[in-house]
Order: sequence, then structure tokens, then C-alpha cells
Amino acid sequence: MAVAEGAAGNHDHARRGGHADAASARPVAEHLDWILGQLPILEPVRVPLEHALGLALAEDVTSATDTPPFDNSAMDGYAVRRADLLAATPMSPVVLPVVADLAAGTAQNPRIDAGQVARIMTGAPIPDGADAVVPIEDTDRGIDRVGILRVPEPAAHIRRAGSDAAAGDTILRAGTTLWPTRIAAAASAGRAELLVHPAPRVAVISTGDELIVPGTPARRGQIPDSNSYLLAAAVAQAGGVVHRIGAVPDNEESLRTVLDSLIGTVDAIILSGGVSVGAYDVVKAVLAPLGVWFGPVRMQPGKPQGFGRLPAAGTGSNSTTGKTGSAGSAALGPIVFALPGNPVSAFVSFEAFVRPALLFMGGHGTTTRPTITGTVARGWSSPSGRQQYMPVVCERRGQETLVWPATSGGSGSHLVAGLGQAEGLAIVPEESDTVAEGDLLPVMLVI
Amino acid sequence: MAVAEGAAGNHDHARRGGHADAASARPVAEHLDWILGQLPILEPVRVPLEHALGLALAEDVTSATDTPPFDNSAMDGYAVRRADLLAATPMSPVVLPVVADLAAGTAQNPRIDAGQVARIMTGAPIPDGADAVVPIEDTDRGIDRVGILRVPEPAAHIRRAGSDAAAGDTILRAGTTLWPTRIAAAASAGRAELLVHPAPRVAVISTGDELIVPGTPARRGQIPDSNSYLLAAAVAQAGGVVHRIGAVPDNEESLRTVLDSLIGTVDAIILSGGVSVGAYDVVKAVLAPLGVWFGPVRMQPGKPQGFGRLPAAGTGSNSTTGKTGSAGSAALGPIVFALPGNPVSAFVSFEAFVRPALLFMGGHGTTTRPTITGTVARGWSSPSGRQQYMPVVCERRGQETLVWPATSGGSGSHLVAGLGQAEGLAIVPEESDTVAEGDLLPVMLVI
Repeated sequence: MAVAEGAAGNHDHARRGGHADAASARPVAEHLDWILGQLPILEPVRVPLEHALGLALAEDVTSATDTPPFDNSAMDGYAVRRADLLAATPMSPVVLPVVADLAAGTAQNPRIDAGQVARIMTGAPIPDGADAVVPIEDTDRGIDRVGILRVPEPAAHIRRAGSDAAAGDTILRAGTTLWPTRIAAAASAGRAELLVHPAPRVAVISTGDELIVPGTPARRGQIPDSNSYLLAAAVAQAGGVVHRIGAVPDNEESLRTVLDSLIGTVDAIILSGGVSVGAYDVVKAVLAPLGVWFGPVRMQPGKPQGFGRLPAAGTGSNSTTGKTGSAGSAALGPIVFALPGNPVSAFVSFEAFVRPALLFMGGHGTTTRPTITGTVARGWSSPSGRQQYMPVVCERRGQETLVWPATSGGSGSHLVAGLGQAEGLAIVPEESDTVAEGDLLPVMLVI
Repeated sequence: MAVAEGAAGNHDHARRGGHADAASARPVAEHLDWILGQLPILEPVRVPLEHALGLALAEDVTSATDTPPFDNSAMDGYAVRRADLLAATPMSPVVLPVVADLAAGTAQNPRIDAGQVARIMTGAPIPDGADAVVPIEDTDRGIDRVGILRVPEPAAHIRRAGSDAAAGDTILRAGTTLWPTRIAAAASAGRAELLVHPAPRVAVISTGDELIVPGTPARRGQIPDSNSYLLAAAVAQAGGVVHRIGAVPDNEESLRTVLDSLIGTVDAIILSGGVSVGAYDVVKAVLAPLGVWFGPVRMQPGKPQGFGRLPAAGTGSNSTTGKTGSAGSAALGPIVFALPGNPVSAFVSFEAFVRPALLFMGGHGTTTRPTITGTVARGWSSPSGRQQYMPVVCERRGQETLVWPATSGGSGSHLVAGLGQAEGLAIVPEESDTVAEGDLLPVMLVI
């Protein structure tokens, strides 16, 4: 359904030479949904716990045994029978024989009879017969016999078997992103490896005859490629495995060669540049005939967007020209994002579409950035009819977060230096044309 | 000064057998300051841009040239002399000859005389004589001659040389953490490599005879090691290079051998377990004679803490016994954190002390987690005289963030499964003994 609309939009767009008014351009949310609806989810793989950080679970994890697996001591002290100690006070300690010494890790289970205690360390199993632990601080620290100064509460300082999780309990669900604490939970449940979705392998390509490698001499007309570094780092932060190609010139054959080299080795390709209405828009020239959608999205910056999938046969295959396939089809190659070339536009497009897509492919249940409500500290203007993403600095003041533009030139899409100060993207709805001090806006946190 | 106090605290502590009341235990902030005051900052290294993500700059980055380096077009369109077009309207376009075709990357600079225009693509240099750009949408898209439908604003769609940064401007400061947008700013400034502080190399060791490798069969008394996975993943998230050793038994000679193997290969060692008052506290037995401080900190969980530096000669050298040196001394080996063994205690200790320390060593200007103000949705109790770190779930509601305990058992320090749900640590001040619904608390975001 969404795909069919997309294809129709593509034809409209081609007929009209890439120039569309606000009404025919796609809303941001619709474009994102359309993209997500076409994405494959990467086939699960088994990884050792140590390689699981940041990946998404592809299975529910249940506790194989009770956690902890046995009653154990929460303190260093003495395992006792509480009934023996009802008279204990600091002035008249109850003195009892110490019949065992139980370290953490011991397999011993000496029977504690009435009038006996065992010395016990944190984590050691509670021996049969004992029903409470007296911390070492409440004793005279005796070795053969110990004086106990206080009566413990019933079951004091005993961690019960299964109190963290009972055998069979689900402790982590499929789709969960594996943070450190969650990896620890899997380890505690006795898991050495986990079924996860792998990190997507992502190639990053800048296009443009004006681009040179940073640090090499520039002649008039040339600028350093910054987008491939920007997008490669953003992919890495989103958990992807990066293959940064760098800058490819505005030459269709060069671009086809590079793209074909990536078939079968990456899951996604991110291009920037070459997607607007100009005469040298090589990305569109190469990809549109293969069925990749190009068109305007109602956002600012980032209006010209492209998305699709390469044919598995590569760019040279006429037989696949113009076909668009369904997600997961064996005849399809990597997904392709064609982003605008201005750095701020490329960054905003990444955050709006590419990052959610990479997380979705990686099986993550949550694909959105944390979003807060920001209070505007200094206003700006916004284009009516387009959803604006304004890079903002954020400052927390109590429960409020003040935000203001990170770039002196507003969302001007070439302002890389100012963009480096942005901690969030404030999202201004399509219908607004001005943002005033005191306005409340959703702010997507990007760091 | 702080170091001297620490040493004195150590002696007191040793005399009193590790049992200290709240008054003699250190406040959290004081312990952190004491740690930070002893840390070396890692020697800067040069890395290519692609290896800079997440590291801290060790130099100011200035723009070598103007950015952008030349006036260029912000749109696909025509470079014009505005004075020629004052009469242009959609009804009576001004038609002019197109004397050049300027793609992005071109070195051409054709003189545009009165009555002439050049076709120009986004990013191409503005030719001499032209003073505005008319977007293609405001023309008839002519090739040899073009009809222009609207008079442009003065200097319309020209991005001025230096408008992002002027030559010599500082665009990034030493201590800055290199996010994607900042790496892009360095690339735009023509930098291929950057002077950065390297990521600290960190060994992670669990101690305890009760610990087994997850997934291997457990007998009575044994549990899977989860802390080494927890702390290794936390180190990786904090940007460290992890060397996870795993579990070492409660045996002094084993621990000494492992520690000695790490001298010269890591910058920091994180141990968990073996730091409380028990008879089998091997970590303390091995490290305290080497001058590593052990003592109570006024926090919950995480009260028993240890911190110091190994001698460069390792654990076997009597000549270094008992010495504490100043930060950066050549005679000192890796820093050592000895954290409590309960997983929640270990995690909280990592967040409170280790993560800031690793970031500090890595030269980061910001070593703290983002902290928000949370509104308590469900209360809990807190020990008076200790600063509590309660793992909490966070839910944003407009400008408010509601928080409630992630673990049913409060901050119970063995509750690994619940800890996996925590997105923040709510910090309850020492003087509070109860937290009520509606209370506002600082919440350190940990994901």
C-alpha cells in the first residue's frame, strides 16, 4: 500500500522534473513509515556475551535456574538459629561454638544444630538448620566460639534462592537492546551466548566532483569531503559496521562500479549528494532507473530524499530495471539511502530516516532517539508547510530544558562548525512559521 | 592534600578493622574528587579522522582556510547580475544568454558581464561579476538562453566564503569529545588527522571462589560470573578498550600473578569482590599492603570501595610497599579500582567513580552523565547518612520525567534482572531516609 503510493509519487515526480509543491511532497512520518515497511530484519546469529553489547536480542532469555540458585548470605558474619539468640544483648552476649567456616563458593553444607553457628562469608550457601545471619559487626568476631551481641530479625541477611528470578522466568525479551546491565542479567541466568540480530554492515559514499580528501591541497571550486566522515561516525554510533568509501566523482560509470562492488558485502548503502534537481545529479541518474524512489519530503533541511533497494544483480542489470520488490526478497540487494549533500541536511536526514532504519534492520524494539520537551530560549523562523529540524544547544534548568539554535545562521544547511555544538534537533511542526521564546518543542537528543 | 587525607583515612581504617561509622566514612563527592586528583591524563596521539569517534581532542582545531573557501551557490540555478533582472516577472521574463555552465567542483571562473548569466549547480563557485543566484524553479530552465521569471533578492542564494568559519577561527577546543558532527567539522576545516587522548586500556577482573563461567555446570555454592561481563560492557560504552580477564579465585598468589601480567599493558584495572570485611577478602589482602586505599564511602549500595595505583614493579616488589605516589609518576603502574562484588553495587560504583575516571584519563572535558530532574512516581526508603543510588525506570510526560524503582526489592544489590530495566540512577541525598511520591530527585541517565 505505502509502497504503491511511493511508486506513484516517483512517477509524478519524474514527470514534473523533480519540482513538487508542498501538497504533493510527503510528510516526514509517512516517508519514515514507508521506508520501515520495506526493510528486511537481519537474520539472527549466535554470539558470545562479550560480543553482544548494543545488539538486539532475537530470542526471549529465560532463567535456566533460580537466581540466585541457592539461599546465601548477604553479609559476612555467622549463620545461626535465631531461637538460640533471643536473649543476646551487647551487655550479655550469647556465646556459641563455631562448627564450620563457610567461604563463598564452598560446596559444604554442615548441619547446624541447636546451639551451634557457622562462620559464613557473603555469597556462601546458608547451611541446613540455620535460619538467619548475624553480621560480623554484631559479634565479637570469634573463631572457635563467638559472642553474639544482638538477636537478628527472622531470616535476616539471607538472600533467598530465586529472589532475583525463578527458574523459567523471562528476564529479557526479544527486541531488547543489550546494555551492560542486560548482558549481566543474561550471564546471571547462566547464558554464555545469545541469539541476536547482527549489526548492519553499511557503506558510506559521498558524491561530487568538488570533494577532495581532507588535508589534501584544494584548488578553486574544491572543498574537503566531510559527509563521509559525518555519516560513517553516525553509523558507528548507531551500532552499524562501517565501510567508508569516501568521495566518488560525479560520473555515472564510477558510481555504478562502486555500487556493484558492494552487492553481497553490505546490508545498506548511504549516499550523499546528487539528489536534487541539478544537471549533474549522478546519484539520481544511476539509481532512479533501478526503481529507487526520489522525491521531496516536507522537511527542512533535507527536502530531497531518495530510498530504495538495489537489485541483487547490481546496477548493470537491465532485467531488474524499474522493479521494486518486497522486503526480504532474495532478488534484492542492499537498501540504499540517497541523502542531500549539504552536511546539515545529510545529518538531519540520517537522524530522521537512516538511524531508525538501521536499528529496525538490527531488530531493535526501540528505533527512536530519546525525545524531551524543550523550552525555546531564543526564537527563530521556520518554513510553513515543512517540518523543521533545528540543531539546538540544550541546557537543563531543573525540570526544564532550555534550547536555542546551535548555528548562528539558523538551520542553514552548510554550517558544519555550528552543528558540532548541537545536542538535539528541535522539531517544529509543518504549520508553524515562527518559533518564539517560551514555546515548547519536542527535541530529539542526538548525543 | 586530598591524597594525604586519603592516606590518613587508610591508616584509621586499618586500625579499626574496616568498620567505620557514618561520620568517618567519606562522602561520595569527596571520594570522587580524591580519585580524580590522582589520575594521569593519557599522552596524546595522532589518529586519522576515522579513528577519532568518541575520543577527546588534545588540541584546539582551527580552520586552515575560510569555510567554505570560496563564495558558492546554495541552489541549482543561474548566477546572475541582479541589476539585469529588475523587470523580470512570470508574465514578462527577462531572457539572457547563458555564457557558462558551472558544475560543483569546477575551477572555471568565467567573467559574467552585464546582460549575461551562467548556469550554476549547488556548491559551484560564484563566477566574477555575478552577484546573486536565481533558483532553477524561477526560470524556464534554458540551456543557451534562459528566461528568468523573478528578480532575486540581493546576494540571493550565495554562501559567502568564511560564512561557516573564517581562516584561523577555533572551531573545536581541546577536551571536546568527538561526536560525528565534530569530526565533520574537523574534516571541513581540512584536517585529515587529529591529536587526541587515546582510549584507556582497561582490564576487568571478577574475584571469588563461587564464580564460574556462565553456561558451565554449577554445583552447590557456585554462581555464574556476571560482573566481568557487566563491567567490561560498561567500560566499552565509556569508550575504553576492554581486556576482560574473567573470574579469578580467592587466592592471593593467583591474583598477584594476574595483576603483574597487566603491568605495562593496561592503564586501569577494575576488580570486583573481595573488598569488604570478610576473612577471604583477597583483593584487599593483596592490594592494601601496596598502598591501595580501602574504606567505606557514604553511599548505598557500594559502601566498601578501594582505589589506588599499582607500583610499576608489580605486586611482588617489597621496595614499593606502602608507597603512594603522585599522578603521572613514572614509577607508578595502572590505576586500580576495587569495587564491591554485588552486581548492583559494582554497577553503581562504576557509574559513580570509574566512568568519570576513565573519561578524565581520556582527556574529556565532560566526565559526567547527563542528569535530569525526575519526579518520583512511587516512593521508597533510603538509608540516612548515605547517598543512595536507586536504579529507576524513566518515563517522559511532557516536561516531566516520572521515575520509579527498577527493582522490586529497592536497591537490593543482587537484583541483576531488575537492574536491566533501569535507565537512570536516582540520587537520594545523605540526609533523606524516605523518598515520597512527587519528590524531585536528580537522575543520572545511564543508557
